[in-house]
Amino acid sequence: MNSNQLFDQISEKQSFLCVGLDTDVTKIPPHLLNEEDPIFSFNKQIVDATQEYAIAYKPNLAFYEAHGVKGWISLQKTIAYIREKYPEQFLIADAKRGDIGNTASMYAKAFFEDMDFDALTVAPYMGEDSVTPFLGHKEKWVILLGLTSNYGADDFQFTGNPPLYEQVIKKAQFWASPDELMFVVGATRASMLGKIRKLAPNNFFLVPGVGAQGGSLAEVAKYGMNKKCGLLVNSSRGIIYADKTEKFATVATQKALELKSEMAELLKKYCK
Amino acid sequence: MNSNQLFDQISEKQSFLCVGLDTDVTKIPPHLLNEEDPIFSFNKQIVDATQEYAIAYKPNLAFYEAHGVKGWISLQKTIAYIREKYPEQFLIADAKRGDIGNTASMYAKAFFEDMDFDALTVAPYMGEDSVTPFLGHKEKWVILLGLTSNYGADDFQFTGNPPLYEQVIKKAQFWASPDELMFVVGATRASMLGKIRKLAPNNFFLVPGVGAQGGSLAEVAKYGMNKKCGLLVNSSRGIIYADKTEKFATVATQKALELKSEMAELLKKYCK
Repeated sequence: MNSNQLFDQISEKQSFLCVGLDTDVTKIPPHLLNEEDPIFSFNKQIVDATQEYAIAYKPNLAFYEAHGVKGWISLQKTIAYIREKYPEQFLIADAKRGDIGNTASMYAKAFFEDMDFDALTVAPYMGEDSVTPFLGHKEKWVILLGLTSNYGADDFQFTGNPPLYEQVIKKAQFWASPDELMFVVGATRASMLGKIRKLAPNNFFLVPGVGAQGGSLAEVAKYGMNKKCGLLVNSSRGIIYADKTEKFATVATQKALELKSEMAELLKKYCK
Repeated sequence: MNSNQLFDQISEKQSFLCVGLDTDVTKIPPHLLNEEDPIFSFNKQIVDATQEYAIAYKPNLAFYEAHGVKGWISLQKTIAYIREKYPEQFLIADAKRGDIGNTASMYAKAFFEDMDFDALTVAPYMGEDSVTPFLGHKEKWVILLGLTSNYGADDFQFTGNPPLYEQVIKKAQFWASPDELMFVVGATRASMLGKIRKLAPNNFFLVPGVGAQGGSLAEVAKYGMNKKCGLLVNSSRGIIYADKTEKFATVATQKALELKSEMAELLKKYCK
């Protein structure tokens, strides 16, 4: 999917909601545990319940890899299901990979070709040759960690002058255009989003940390939006674990709709 | 495996060789492609051929994940095979993971419990809470990226004063003892190893980049060794792809023996 198509989806649905499929068997409604593939069953119902208000889904790979082969099967089934039934959805592999040369090329093949994800999150520590192998795949995206929302972000991301995260955001723009490069920018740092938006006026930002992690959607939009929205805001727990009974899917719909409604207002206000 | 056991292995075998299982179906001997699981067949023969001279094996996860479910099966079979037949080997999952909280805990479960790896490589960009969930697993290790050997290392690892990689190596020692924390230090920077050894006198270093990537083993030992060796030097291509005929395993033995012999000399010289 290219950036125009992504913006079309945002405009049409009046939403920039990404639903995080951090699917944990210890947290899903217990009645699903009797199913043959509880993770897939849960994902399928969550996707069906939220797709009207979401423009993207982001499985966090760890939750699948933790189950080894079985987990990969659940992931592949989830992706194939979304691709077939809701081909307009933008699919992000939250893998935070960072490796070089051959290795990175293998990852690119796995996620972009075999599984048909649209985007992959990548860690910048190893520099240019850990990022460029993921580039140049038609209408596929790298989402590079910029400023994360966890407390450990302070350990290294503010090192140097300008701070490391700014250097990452500036330098990476020499490697790729805004048509294949996004940045992860944590929502708990909404006030810094304005500064980061100036450094990368045209790139999409993937913003985790709204909801359960404490970020404010209104603040994120105020500081982070650009003329083509430029934001994908992720919510995981606030939607997928909002209810643990047999009504979980209905409650997920409500939660997604609440966020979508707020997003529609913010799009009207800031994205003209 | 704890650090004393690891050092015992090194002393007994007079080797600190780690063999990188970067198994790529396009590079293995063509006759193996007729086997049911070519990757596992190749790994099994490489391990059998080199285990006498190696103390560790390091599958690079990307090469397995690139094949999805099939790749994970090959990886699990490889690990189970080594664990059963050569339980004294130290097993490193070269995954370069970096994520927080729940997600990192899921990875720890996958690699340390389900697959029984001894160690996992971790990227430091997200800071403390992306590293600590991997700690505290009895006799399991985090191997944190310090200074890598690729050219992109210059992009960010030298940011700040002291440079980022030094800050990583210093700060991480507040999070974990040398009994569960190693660092990746690229061999193409052998002259800097002396400085890094002063910053982390008691930690093991995992050193990639010897051989095909151009590092010198003698230099690495001269600058990097401590009283308990403190080094695991990895070779991948120089051993596993040294020959692509039906004699590949015999040639791999020779190549591993060559490195082991040099290592034995270096252990006598520097590690008393």
